[in-house]
Amino acid sequence: MERTEKIPKATITRLSLYCRQLELLEFDGYRMVSSEKLARLCQVNPAQVRKDLGYFGEFGIRGVGYEVKELQEEVKKILAINREWRMGIVGIGNLGVALLRHENFPARGFHFIAAFDSDPDKIGRTLRLGFVIRDVNELKEASKDLEMDIGVITTPAAGAQATADRFIDAGINAILNFSPAQIHVPEYCIVENIDFTIKLDILTYKLKNEIGI
Amino acid sequence: MERTEKIPKATITRLSLYCRQLELLEFDGYRMVSSEKLARLCQVNPAQVRKDLGYFGEFGIRGVGYEVKELQEEVKKILAINREWRMGIVGIGNLGVALLRHENFPARGFHFIAAFDSDPDKIGRTLRLGFVIRDVNELKEASKDLEMDIGVITTPAAGAQATADRFIDAGINAILNFSPAQIHVPEYCIVENIDFTIKLDILTYKLKNEIGI
Repeated sequence: MERTEKIPKATITRLSLYCRQLELLEFDGYRMVSSEKLARLCQVNPAQVRKDLGYFGEFGIRGVGYEVKELQEEVKKILAINREWRMGIVGIGNLGVALLRHENFPARGFHFIAAFDSDPDKIGRTLRLGFVIRDVNELKEASKDLEMDIGVITTPAAGAQATADRFIDAGINAILNFSPAQIHVPEYCIVENIDFTIKLDILTYKLKNEIGI
Repeated sequence: MERTEKIPKATITRLSLYCRQLELLEFDGYRMVSSEKLARLCQVNPAQVRKDLGYFGEFGIRGVGYEVKELQEEVKKILAINREWRMGIVGIGNLGVALLRHENFPARGFHFIAAFDSDPDKIGRTLRLGFVIRDVNELKEASKDLEMDIGVITTPAAGAQATADRFIDAGINAILNFSPAQIHVPEYCIVENIDFTIKLDILTYKLKNEIGI
């Protein structure tokens, strides 16, 4: 628990990448993988793979490599994705619908179990997943039965903070924020932001400075 | 140009955040902002703001702060977002449509100018933006006139690498990849990945290790 502080976020991100490649390797029938190969597949260097895994224990056999299935299970345990997670989403526009239909979420144990919007035209509509879009005003009340672990925000920027406040008020401590607004939450709440335009800024910065466009 | 190597990606990401807050400050009528206030708005510490900006020159007046509009322009120049960028997108599913309609892109100078898909039912359909969805097989030919700067991939994972290859073949050196697949590109090509499930893995890792769920 204490050592968590020292583990860089980049390591966690890479563990997530390793996990995907290990799944693909298993799918392709591989039983073992060397750190060199795993590194190459993930586009990092082998020392990085060993260092990242080293934070969490001793894995693999020196000179031989890792057992694909075993390492995959260990990494999933570290990332806490060896279980199911229940998600609620607020803002059922194009992006919201895209996420609700995203096949990779349920495949990885992330299940949308409730959807909310403020638009009277949307409220009451039944989604492909089998549940109806609820009034966002009912979020707190609804959450008593829903046991949501994670709140997903896909509202426009203007509605993001109010939505975050609703999630927190409903006892949800983990938020995935897709809106371009920065949200402010109590310290005990965890937020991950996915801002598409920030990625574009990084891309253009590199285009200018690395390619010289 | 040379110093680019030393600038951490996290600095570039934060510059993008500073830029957003500076825009909001300007919108709210502020002419000056202290590094303390800018830092608070961006949820970082003031020393970090000064350090990040320090990579690129001397900004602001000691003890007074930064001119909101001037700093905003400087940061935009650094990030190369003081100009328009032309984007092509492949994969016009829910996510593709969500991005095509995303208001923040054009507002920040990122313009979709072409859309491609492989689905005969989609090819030829006119988008709200005023252009039709083209056959992805025509990407290279079409790109001769389009002057695309950035290629956006919103295909399923299985189609991501082929799409990246098409973009590169068409002379596009910057790719924003929304598919959950890792794509391999020549060294001169820049890729930024937006994988929603990786963010969820980070969130669940933190939920387990910081909150203890």
